[in-house]
Amino acid sequence: MTYTLILLRHGQSEWNEKNLFTGWVDVALTEKGREEATRGGQLLTEAGILPDIVYTSRQKRAIITANLALEAADRSWIDVKRNWRLNERHYGALQGKDKAQTLAEYGEQQFMEWRRSYDTPPPPLDDASEYSQANDPRYADLGDDVPRTECLKDVLERFLPYWESDITADIRAGRTVLIAAHGNSLRALVKHLDGISDKDIAALNIPTGIPLVYELDEDLKPVKAGGTYLDADAAAAAIEAVANQGKH
Amino acid sequence: MTYTLILLRHGQSEWNEKNLFTGWVDVALTEKGREEATRGGQLLTEAGILPDIVYTSRQKRAIITANLALEAADRSWIDVKRNWRLNERHYGALQGKDKAQTLAEYGEQQFMEWRRSYDTPPPPLDDASEYSQANDPRYADLGDDVPRTECLKDVLERFLPYWESDITADIRAGRTVLIAAHGNSLRALVKHLDGISDKDIAALNIPTGIPLVYELDEDLKPVKAGGTYLDADAAAAAIEAVANQGKH
Repeated sequence: MTYTLILLRHGQSEWNEKNLFTGWVDVALTEKGREEATRGGQLLTEAGILPDIVYTSRQKRAIITANLALEAADRSWIDVKRNWRLNERHYGALQGKDKAQTLAEYGEQQFMEWRRSYDTPPPPLDDASEYSQANDPRYADLGDDVPRTECLKDVLERFLPYWESDITADIRAGRTVLIAAHGNSLRALVKHLDGISDKDIAALNIPTGIPLVYELDEDLKPVKAGGTYLDADAAAAAIEAVANQGKH
Repeated sequence: MTYTLILLRHGQSEWNEKNLFTGWVDVALTEKGREEATRGGQLLTEAGILPDIVYTSRQKRAIITANLALEAADRSWIDVKRNWRLNERHYGALQGKDKAQTLAEYGEQQFMEWRRSYDTPPPPLDDASEYSQANDPRYADLGDDVPRTECLKDVLERFLPYWESDITADIRAGRTVLIAAHGNSLRALVKHLDGISDKDIAALNIPTGIPLVYELDEDLKPVKAGGTYLDADAAAAAIEAVANQGKH
């Protein structure tokens, strides 16, 4: 008896296209991002892997990715759960800043530390910033606990309680779970699933729009470390491209 | 203290366009139907009425209507609940049949009885029919209780328990609830809310894609009978057109 878990990172957003740090800013998908999402759903159909329930963040780029992928897979009717714990990493004061400009201004060492350090968050975002979520109705239930910045460790620590309380319950009930989320919330989950070290997780990139399927054993350990991308060639090419993002 | 409830009937489906009885057959929206849904979301935005949670049937024409309306209203992030109890009336053996042809074959009296009788269902649909839901994974949890035909009374009787158990709980918690559903499941709810008689409900038609907003008092009774359509002129014109549907 094994369980099936599908991870899907949202497609290109308007700020991916503009090369800006996004984090919790709720930007829309581009037309290319919408096509990626539909393609993701087609890959699920072709593989015959049909989700029974979908989890998303509270961010529209992941939600619309889920909507479009499920429409393409003719599974729009499944149950839906949304939770802020699946959100992208909060990028602190970097939210809204140009990546290339930030790299030029602060140098590669600082830039890469902010992007890939496991436990050092960027400087916090001021509540008065137009990119702050301190007064966002999406997160009213969080009160003053809305993040002002996060490192990957913070993401792991807010994601895992929800994984344990809700997502694993659905998995253990035999449901094929689809998680439509973000680069860093999915990296946090993959780190946990595959037991990747704090250091090695820095080098892991998850491509957009390509379903990553894990078969999990009875202890919810991956049968195959790293899972399986439904389009392995496209995934390999995309991982390479993501790794070079922000570099010249 | 009043509560806000929004009803939204899905836009044109592929079988509306072809003038076929649809019921539980899971047909897609047409491009026109998708535009109606987006317009519905724009009307919500213009009125400043923002749903906190959305309920849908398990049928894609209502689900995609909700997705598109919420995207247009920038409320994709709200919680979602889907339930078969919000589905369209099961049209029995008429599912998949041409409305005009059925009218010609059976005469106006029989035709109108099937369409508008409160407590007489059409003949049941055979499980072997390509239009049956007896083995549909969407309704696996229903087992052999999947409907084979329904009259409006049947719809009311399967809808009200869910209204009482789930939807009213969200309303009483102060959430603005959006229900994206179907002509007959919404007629059943309106009959209940406005206390319309078994006879008079026959004449009530709800137009597609135009949000119908009810303010409810502490006993969940409508402050204004019949609620308020967000585009009153378009609603009046559409109600007239629906009333003439199937006639020559």
